[in-house]
Amino acid sequence: MIARGPLLGEFMGTFVLMLLGNGVVAGVLLKKTKAENAGWMVITTAWAFAVLSGIFVAQLFGSPDAHLNPAFTLAAAIKTHAWYTVLPYMAVQVAGAFLGAVATWLFFYPHWAVTDDPGAKLGVFATGPAIRHYASNFFCEVLATFVLVLVAGGMSSKLVLTTGAAAGLSPLLVGCLVWGVGLSLGATTGYAINPARDLGPRLAHQLMPIAGKGTSDWAYAWVPILGPLVGGALAGYVLLRIGA
Amino acid sequence: MIARGPLLGEFMGTFVLMLLGNGVVAGVLLKKTKAENAGWMVITTAWAFAVLSGIFVAQLFGSPDAHLNPAFTLAAAIKTHAWYTVLPYMAVQVAGAFLGAVATWLFFYPHWAVTDDPGAKLGVFATGPAIRHYASNFFCEVLATFVLVLVAGGMSSKLVLTTGAAAGLSPLLVGCLVWGVGLSLGATTGYAINPARDLGPRLAHQLMPIAGKGTSDWAYAWVPILGPLVGGALAGYVLLRIGA
Amino acid sequence: MIARGPLLGEFMGTFVLMLLGNGVVAGVLLKKTKAENAGWMVITTAWAFAVLSGIFVAQLFGSPDAHLNPAFTLAAAIKTHAWYTVLPYMAVQVAGAFLGAVATWLFFYPHWAVTDDPGAKLGVFATGPAIRHYASNFFCEVLATFVLVLVAGGMSSKLVLTTGAAAGLSPLLVGCLVWGVGLSLGATTGYAINPARDLGPRLAHQLMPIAGKGTSDWAYAWVPILGPLVGGALAGYVLLRIGA
Amino acid sequence: MIARGPLLGEFMGTFVLMLLGNGVVAGVLLKKTKAENAGWMVITTAWAFAVLSGIFVAQLFGSPDAHLNPAFTLAAAIKTHAWYTVLPYMAVQVAGAFLGAVATWLFFYPHWAVTDDPGAKLGVFATGPAIRHYASNFFCEVLATFVLVLVAGGMSSKLVLTTGAAAGLSPLLVGCLVWGVGLSLGATTGYAINPARDLGPRLAHQLMPIAGKGTSDWAYAWVPILGPLVGGALAGYVLLRIGA
Repeated sequence: MIARGPLLGEFMGTFVLMLLGNGVVAGVLLKKTKAENAGWMVITTAWAFAVLSGIFVAQLFGSPDAHLNPAFTLAAAIKTHAWYTVLPYMAVQVAGAFLGAVATWLFFYPHWAVTDDPGAKLGVFATGPAIRHYASNFFCEVLATFVLVLVAGGMSSKLVLTTGAAAGLSPLLVGCLVWGVGLSLGATTGYAINPARDLGPRLAHQLMPIAGKGTSDWAYAWVPILGPLVGGALAGYVLLRIGA
Repeated sequence: MIARGPLLGEFMGTFVLMLLGNGVVAGVLLKKTKAENAGWMVITTAWAFAVLSGIFVAQLFGSPDAHLNPAFTLAAAIKTHAWYTVLPYMAVQVAGAFLGAVATWLFFYPHWAVTDDPGAKLGVFATGPAIRHYASNFFCEVLATFVLVLVAGGMSSKLVLTTGAAAGLSPLLVGCLVWGVGLSLGATTGYAINPARDLGPRLAHQLMPIAGKGTSDWAYAWVPILGPLVGGALAGYVLLRIGA
Repeated sequence: MIARGPLLGEFMGTFVLMLLGNGVVAGVLLKKTKAENAGWMVITTAWAFAVLSGIFVAQLFGSPDAHLNPAFTLAAAIKTHAWYTVLPYMAVQVAGAFLGAVATWLFFYPHWAVTDDPGAKLGVFATGPAIRHYASNFFCEVLATFVLVLVAGGMSSKLVLTTGAAAGLSPLLVGCLVWGVGLSLGATTGYAINPARDLGPRLAHQLMPIAGKGTSDWAYAWVPILGPLVGGALAGYVLLRIGA
Repeated sequence: MIARGPLLGEFMGTFVLMLLGNGVVAGVLLKKTKAENAGWMVITTAWAFAVLSGIFVAQLFGSPDAHLNPAFTLAAAIKTHAWYTVLPYMAVQVAGAFLGAVATWLFFYPHWAVTDDPGAKLGVFATGPAIRHYASNFFCEVLATFVLVLVAGGMSSKLVLTTGAAAGLSPLLVGCLVWGVGLSLGATTGYAINPARDLGPRLAHQLMPIAGKGTSDWAYAWVPILGPLVGGALAGYVLLRIGA
């Protein structure tokens, strides 16, 4: 038997999340795919179901809370004071995201060589700003992640009358939330809202022999790492204070 | 602990509703975003999940009924005769919407200066008619809000056999309803269907130092305020008479 | 109190169904709307939520079965032998659809005069074939309605293990079914799949003083009336034989 | 009475799956339809609801597990050792898919003659690679099917806390999963992820007198047959080892 457990669950769930998440961006940005230039609706819808799928995989392999995201792990630690889980969770989340990005690269193997734009290739892996303005970009990642973690906290809170948790609705509701956050707050920075979602694939972009790739833009990398952590921590603090 | 309660819940829920709702319009209408010109499907889908998210936040902070909208508050008062809640609810809904619009302005900060069209900038905040015809525009807001409040009343009514309330489906069903009303009845006036959704952001547009903004079009403002109130009142009266 | 009952429920539910259903087509086909040329995804998604909304309204006003469609009424009669309900149900369904079409006309009032194409105006109300070929068009309406009524029968059947009826999922599932039938089988005839949906609005098109309207194309009207009735009857017979 | 049973259920469910699934591709690829060139979002959304519909039909006619796909049948056999069901299930799945493709051909009857491109006509029936690279195409079908069967396994597993099975959510969740897999991993090979989905319609393309058809591209046919079987078997083995 495979030894199920939270770390394996977070690793496998984040792997599936990023294979599907990076996958849709590859389909839209790379050349000669069947989804070429399919647009913002396709990207945001796919990320919703990537999260839905990642949650079920995380639970299947032993992580019932299914964070898939260091911002949720940090918020949970603030609420529960279970600080000892933070670093190992984050490590396997980044590792799972790294592996998901490697799998995406293999999945779209013949499409890298027929795509010229190195910026599009980086965009498959890591987020980047629509307009580079570090203060504003950081604010976007903080606020979008704050909304994400706060609303998700409401969806599973005992304070909420219409919680869908008992009926198994939670993953679908969280998927719809990610759909909405992407559509509404994703247009400025590409909504990392998850440090592992950005760092793991950016590392993969740096290390893998991708045909015709350019820079991995490490100058921007602190924004999608620090912003979501700050936003998640703020939401976790509000959830703690409200007794959620 | 934060003191939870209906007024805080309505304030926070409407804040999240309008940050996400104004946010998607900003993404589609402002220049150099990743959602530029992404179209009607993106806008209407995002508003559905903005309402879904707002409902959970309102419940989390202490408003189990989660109106987020003076039209629902008025309809509820007509059904329950709890008239004393009407004005304070409406005040915090407008205040939450105002704050959500301010947050949207900050979120898209570098995009205002690169967008020329003052009409597009106003469109991020407040609704406006596709063809200016006050009688018709007013009729649209009345009828669309009537449908919204009537169907939502059905979704939570004890008269309805397949209500999703018990299973926590209500927020998702209301989100789908808003999706449908937007797609089907939003194309003439931009479907305010909520006086706070229009008034709060229009005030924010008036007061904030938005780069290159134009008029706030107060001549039209009565339509998305009065229309939804009339429509909500009519639906509330029907729900009362039917014993819903 | 309003006297609730199945006939009022069918009337009001079909009214809301057709206001929302005709509404989205008006938004996409008429000129100078905010949804102009928004495309097939917008149309099919809106019809899904039009049905969702109509079901809740029908149940609210006293029709727990929420047919909204003579094809379902016929199929139900075949299953239950309650033949005496067929004609009155069908009559109020057509009347509700007629009123919904009138409301759509008023809703888009200033947009009729700025739209030149009489074919687009008819398309807001009634269905028409992509390629006129009566035998094939008839077959399409038969088969699409057969699938609609058969799958909907499965969604509420005691034979199906994962029925969503108990949890209030049914209207959402039926909405998704209509979404799918529209996307997959709607491209040839515009998927009437409901005689009332076509006949009521076609009558409204004939009788109302729509600016610059053309013919109501009665030569085609038998296809979306007879086709869905045959398809619904076939599905009802299969459901009867299978003991659903 | 019709004799319900797993084989009839798999046959009828796969028939409906492929009528709806082939149907949306026909609507988008053939000429003079109302969905012509409607794009990737339309195709992937329709396939989600095609699966949703197929599941209910399969259960209605007697297959509570509703595989509709030899990859799921193989995975189930690996988990349960019920090997004797594998070949008959696969045979009726292919037969149902064949009949669904024949029905799609009839449904779009007048549109074949007005469409010139033989490649588009084949695309209505069978999948094909965006870039022909057999090793990569095979890898895509293996990995996408692995994700599909693994996540679906999680959605119905006793190990998962938020399973939607009890509340009748399963078909909706599986539909969302197929939506996500299509959007994220469908752009390279057109996501057969189901040997019956490709083989049955390819046989129909070969045998039917389709106006102006070209080759049935049997050289590629092994990829969408063998790839999904390998991916499904791998996922079944993981599910077995994890005790799902």
